[in-house]
Amino acid sequence: MSKLRFRISLSLDGFVAGPNQSVQEPLGIGGEQLHEWVVPLEAWRRAHGKEGGEVNESTRVMEAELVNIGATIMGRNMFGGAPGPWSTTDPWKGWWGRNPPFHHPVFVLTRHEREPLMMEGGTSFTFVTDGIESALEQARRASGGKDVALAGGARAAQQYLNAGLVDEMQLHLAPMLLGAGERLFDTVEDLHGLVLVETVAAPNVVHLRFARE
Amino acid sequence: MSKLRFRISLSLDGFVAGPNQSVQEPLGIGGEQLHEWVVPLEAWRRAHGKEGGEVNESTRVMEAELVNIGATIMGRNMFGGAPGPWSTTDPWKGWWGRNPPFHHPVFVLTRHEREPLMMEGGTSFTFVTDGIESALEQARRASGGKDVALAGGARAAQQYLNAGLVDEMQLHLAPMLLGAGERLFDTVEDLHGLVLVETVAAPNVVHLRFARE
Repeated sequence: MSKLRFRISLSLDGFVAGPNQSVQEPLGIGGEQLHEWVVPLEAWRRAHGKEGGEVNESTRVMEAELVNIGATIMGRNMFGGAPGPWSTTDPWKGWWGRNPPFHHPVFVLTRHEREPLMMEGGTSFTFVTDGIESALEQARRASGGKDVALAGGARAAQQYLNAGLVDEMQLHLAPMLLGAGERLFDTVEDLHGLVLVETVAAPNVVHLRFARE
Repeated sequence: MSKLRFRISLSLDGFVAGPNQSVQEPLGIGGEQLHEWVVPLEAWRRAHGKEGGEVNESTRVMEAELVNIGATIMGRNMFGGAPGPWSTTDPWKGWWGRNPPFHHPVFVLTRHEREPLMMEGGTSFTFVTDGIESALEQARRASGGKDVALAGGARAAQQYLNAGLVDEMQLHLAPMLLGAGERLFDTVEDLHGLVLVETVAAPNVVHLRFARE
């Protein structure tokens, strides 16, 4: 069965984004620090069309995260801010340019209907307005039998966690404080059977992988 | 120089105690789960006068925590609830019985003056009403040149963290959610130079040690 695999970076005080998120600072004030572990990696740079970079304990974690993923689900904020830009003459197509680093179908949870977008390199964006279970069904159908990645943000994750639909959760814990922002586990009181199965320490991060026993 | 070494168990969602703390449930609802990693340990049982128990990756962490500690500071709640019991004919002497497992001077932060208590086995409780810096000074003087442990709870920790007085922070991260309760990092926005220096994975816990670079 195709699994739903959630992954996200969070701060030691539990935030996946800092306060005052905006188009200029999509992760809010200080939020970029959550990704200090990944941006220098050779594997990350390669996925974004860049050369060079580091290889460390995070490399294996990041590569394992990409294995056997056939589709991605994300919340509307992660795709890109308010619906405003979508209605202009140059509609918003996400943060990632013409050739996004997904290379498979992406399903965006939103309340605003919109035609699908076909991007270069095999990425498409489909906008799902009828809820998380519909998005998961569509993603599973589109994944060709592979697993589905849940990329965030917090609200999308909370809905899937509370519905008990997450099969694997990979937390990238950044050992710093944000002090304010969006809390990953707001409204979530139960991991629905997910238990810690692997811990990997690496520069600027501790990777915690949870799975069903 | 004698260091201030803070250690505490917290949940994945950042709580060091569950909701509704009481004399019956000093760690609040669900809070006991925070200590599931330590209670089965042979080292913990021995410190509490019991035989048997497990030896695992947590043993070294727990033993290292006890090395070179000459005094302990704790908040009033950790010593034991409201000041009410202190004025009865059988005054409250902490949770730990006649021979508490500290075996050195303990300084309790409180707003209520009280004479020191001399317990068996070398433990004493001194009640400090003039603030965290005074408690730290007194603990350092009493520690005989050794380090001082900061045992919690959240409010005491927040005050020392925000004052930049913590030299080492050992977090025992329990991989479960409490959903509500007392948050360790409430009001704390900055680790004041503490960086992650060691990560140890063990059953029911990930130990994260922070120190000044």
